[in-house]
Amino acid sequence: MNALMMRQPLLISTLLTHAERHHGEQEIVSRRVEGDLHRQTYRQLGQRARRMANALAARGMKFGDRVATLAWNGYRHMELYYAVSGSGAVLHTLNPRLHPDQVVWIADHAEDQILFFDLSFLPLIEAIASRVKTVKAFVAMTDRAHMPVSAALPDLLCYEDLIEAHSDEFEWPSFDENTASSLCYTSGTTGNPKGALYSHRSTVLHTYAAALPDTFNCSARDTILPVVPMFHVNAWGLPYVACMVGAKLVFPGPWLDGKSLYDLFEGEGVTLSAGVPTVWQGLLTHVETTGQRFSTMRRTIIGGSACPPAMMSAFQDHHGVHVMHAWGMTEMSPLGTVCALKPKHLSLDATARAAVQAKQGRAIYGVEMKIVGDDGQELPHDGRSAGELMVRGPWIISSYYKSEGGDPLVDGWFPTGDVSTIDTDGFMQITDRSKDVVKSGGEWIGSIDLENIAMAHPAVAMAACIGVRHPKWDERPLLVVAKKPNAEVSREELIRFYDGKIAKWWTPDDVVFVDSIPLGATGKMQKNKLREQFQNHQLPTL
Amino acid sequence: MNALMMRQPLLISTLLTHAERHHGEQEIVSRRVEGDLHRQTYRQLGQRARRMANALAARGMKFGDRVATLAWNGYRHMELYYAVSGSGAVLHTLNPRLHPDQVVWIADHAEDQILFFDLSFLPLIEAIASRVKTVKAFVAMTDRAHMPVSAALPDLLCYEDLIEAHSDEFEWPSFDENTASSLCYTSGTTGNPKGALYSHRSTVLHTYAAALPDTFNCSARDTILPVVPMFHVNAWGLPYVACMVGAKLVFPGPWLDGKSLYDLFEGEGVTLSAGVPTVWQGLLTHVETTGQRFSTMRRTIIGGSACPPAMMSAFQDHHGVHVMHAWGMTEMSPLGTVCALKPKHLSLDATARAAVQAKQGRAIYGVEMKIVGDDGQELPHDGRSAGELMVRGPWIISSYYKSEGGDPLVDGWFPTGDVSTIDTDGFMQITDRSKDVVKSGGEWIGSIDLENIAMAHPAVAMAACIGVRHPKWDERPLLVVAKKPNAEVSREELIRFYDGKIAKWWTPDDVVFVDSIPLGATGKMQKNKLREQFQNHQLPTL
Repeated sequence: MNALMMRQPLLISTLLTHAERHHGEQEIVSRRVEGDLHRQTYRQLGQRARRMANALAARGMKFGDRVATLAWNGYRHMELYYAVSGSGAVLHTLNPRLHPDQVVWIADHAEDQILFFDLSFLPLIEAIASRVKTVKAFVAMTDRAHMPVSAALPDLLCYEDLIEAHSDEFEWPSFDENTASSLCYTSGTTGNPKGALYSHRSTVLHTYAAALPDTFNCSARDTILPVVPMFHVNAWGLPYVACMVGAKLVFPGPWLDGKSLYDLFEGEGVTLSAGVPTVWQGLLTHVETTGQRFSTMRRTIIGGSACPPAMMSAFQDHHGVHVMHAWGMTEMSPLGTVCALKPKHLSLDATARAAVQAKQGRAIYGVEMKIVGDDGQELPHDGRSAGELMVRGPWIISSYYKSEGGDPLVDGWFPTGDVSTIDTDGFMQITDRSKDVVKSGGEWIGSIDLENIAMAHPAVAMAACIGVRHPKWDERPLLVVAKKPNAEVSREELIRFYDGKIAKWWTPDDVVFVDSIPLGATGKMQKNKLREQFQNHQLPTL
Repeated sequence: MNALMMRQPLLISTLLTHAERHHGEQEIVSRRVEGDLHRQTYRQLGQRARRMANALAARGMKFGDRVATLAWNGYRHMELYYAVSGSGAVLHTLNPRLHPDQVVWIADHAEDQILFFDLSFLPLIEAIASRVKTVKAFVAMTDRAHMPVSAALPDLLCYEDLIEAHSDEFEWPSFDENTASSLCYTSGTTGNPKGALYSHRSTVLHTYAAALPDTFNCSARDTILPVVPMFHVNAWGLPYVACMVGAKLVFPGPWLDGKSLYDLFEGEGVTLSAGVPTVWQGLLTHVETTGQRFSTMRRTIIGGSACPPAMMSAFQDHHGVHVMHAWGMTEMSPLGTVCALKPKHLSLDATARAAVQAKQGRAIYGVEMKIVGDDGQELPHDGRSAGELMVRGPWIISSYYKSEGGDPLVDGWFPTGDVSTIDTDGFMQITDRSKDVVKSGGEWIGSIDLENIAMAHPAVAMAACIGVRHPKWDERPLLVVAKKPNAEVSREELIRFYDGKIAKWWTPDDVVFVDSIPLGATGKMQKNKLREQFQNHQLPTL
């Protein structure tokens, strides 16, 4: 029997109209590429997004067309989030950290029609403009006074000209909530990049879930600074969350060094931030060097990769900033789990509590998880059994854009490629990527555990653990270490450092020192490059 | 273009499976009709709900069948919430405070197939059993030891017998999220009762919205005691919210007096409660008499009718319990607005802040509001213009069950029957029910304002303001007052009490004293009865 409730579709435009109506005076503060600090309100965001929606229509953008951005976190990018998706077109956030060849490949694959870019990326635009096949116009996200003169691109459009030339009278259209709203490619280490094509429905549901008290816990009294880029899975959904709850938003633009972030946190009264561990390292180094304190920051979300225990301790014990581990994927919009404590954890001692907080956390309602062994059979949630993590839910992809890579699902579940445990409280902990796990004598050694231990050593800046061929054990762990500047530590000392911290047979067989560990476009260690480099490494244990 | 996300339906059963998986050890504590305190976990809730789902199937319940309850807030009622809706049947929560004739009319209209009841309601069941046309079985929600012997009803089934006789192996079915999940009748003051038929989709969306930080703000670290009955718009959604976030739940059963509630609050560490003003009055009187304090209560949600300012002050200033005004309707699942403060309100002085908190608040994301004048034209959100409040959103009805009362919508909006203002921050304040407003000389006088002022007088227990015919002004306000025991106050003193508090011409023309104000089944003042009683009242101003 059908219920008798209104069939209002879940549309991204309603997030904006809600923010305009109930939080019209709330601020959006942006550190611009131009260097200055820009302020506008949600009311202005709404007006300018409607102007841009008219501009897009005037440029011939139709329902379903892909509109690309190459942009930092800022108010103009935010306007495009709503103008493009709100119009029924698809916002395609390109990752400017990718190689130009990859950008061209992805823009062609997506069939982008217009490309908006921040001034920082003009050289990249000049490098790709003649190569991309479908882009009809390039728009510099700046005003007339700052417009670059580009010999290669005489037809550049100016963002503020488009805004000024069009009316703010625009009625957001209503349509099926399963319509595509935005597109984000994941740069896999193998094969072509693959696009996750989000819907209005998945985005709105994800926004509700992200704002919950045990997720990001966002209210109208928060000031949110997303360090995680808007070109990386929609900044974990924070541009949508901010509109839903009416929070003040602060955008750092390209200025992600420790000092710039700290000044923005303090100057704007930031209460909540979110980003990957590599960015936080810069911030922590800055405040530790200068002896500064956070006066308004209450919590930070760390995701992208596991937060090293030393970083968690520095935030919580030295700075009083609560750290929440989060885990997700581009294919998951991205949120899957958040490590929000249960009542029983509040009375734990520091060590036991840190062990809980080291986990990626429990599933947000809307995401179902299970772990399976090599045979596909479900494993128990006992906190010990490790298996491949499978997920299911309304904001998880059913396939990649244009079916790239074939059908990714297994019996309706999306295989994450992560190996994890789930404990009796439902807390998930990633022990490894399934491709990074070291398979030694039929058992799995989690490379992340080994890396975390090494990174707790005072001389170690970064450490990666990879499996290296071994005739008897199949694989054995090799630790690759980048030392801190002017720090010294020997191979033997690092191997001894594992004593008592881990099962004896998990101890790395060898240590090699490198100048730096290669990082990918999203700040993750590129272990595939290390595996290539050290594929013929002779273990001393042979 | 369609997105490529999983099409997982939003189903109520997934709230339960989520709670089982991630919060299996969390407690549900119930004060039973039998008098004792009962404890079980979410894991047990899940097992017992599956047993009951099997029992329902064995009794012939099919997809879409209506299963009725006449029950207090308790764990067995909670089990039925999930067993019935989770199976694809429709949970129909009957209101035991209605007259038996109304209960019969509603059960017949809904075509209820099975009726579950708490022992308190055996006399009601005996009175209606032979009259209801479609009910095939009556189930006493108790165990074998407490089964009543009813000469009138020899075939009574026993709840615990059903649970014990069936397996806990049951796979919750998957189906369209727009399927009806539950049914609640609103007892209008005119016409037949009308049923709001909720869907799985509307319920899950409402649950997300209700748990948000600026709504009920519920986490796994909360202990929630819903005083608002589960037979009244699903206890404002709290039985669903608790599963979504994994909060501890405490059910008071029939014991709603001040002492019983206080003991339960303290004994179980309740952090959040929700109910109508009349219940809170009993609780406040109890703690004021005994001098007791709340040691864990942090906030309470007050809805159903406007919270008198004196009550808000008592909670906040004397007891440190933050009060949140909420507003909604049976037709709205029920939540529409919550009065969550904005940053700028935090620095207001006590009086100015109380004025904000007296408002019903801003719309939760998902609910759109507008106010319209007599001509149907939209009025400005200036905090002064009062018009009929219209709402729209995915958890608001599109029509009543079986089209009772015809098409309720106006241009796709649901007219609430409330008269309100909306200020520039989007805060809505109800000034009256459209039928209660006093129309004097072409202007509207809000009866609620006049009542709140009277109720701030120390001698007044309850006050109602109604319009009485006046030849010159059409209507003029009459104040009907029930005094506190042993308190004295004169007509003249009460009229003087309005001096300086309100526009002179709003002052009531007369005051009459009554022993008590008639209350309806949901605790609201029945002003229609007063209007009838005083329709020929001779105003001294004639």
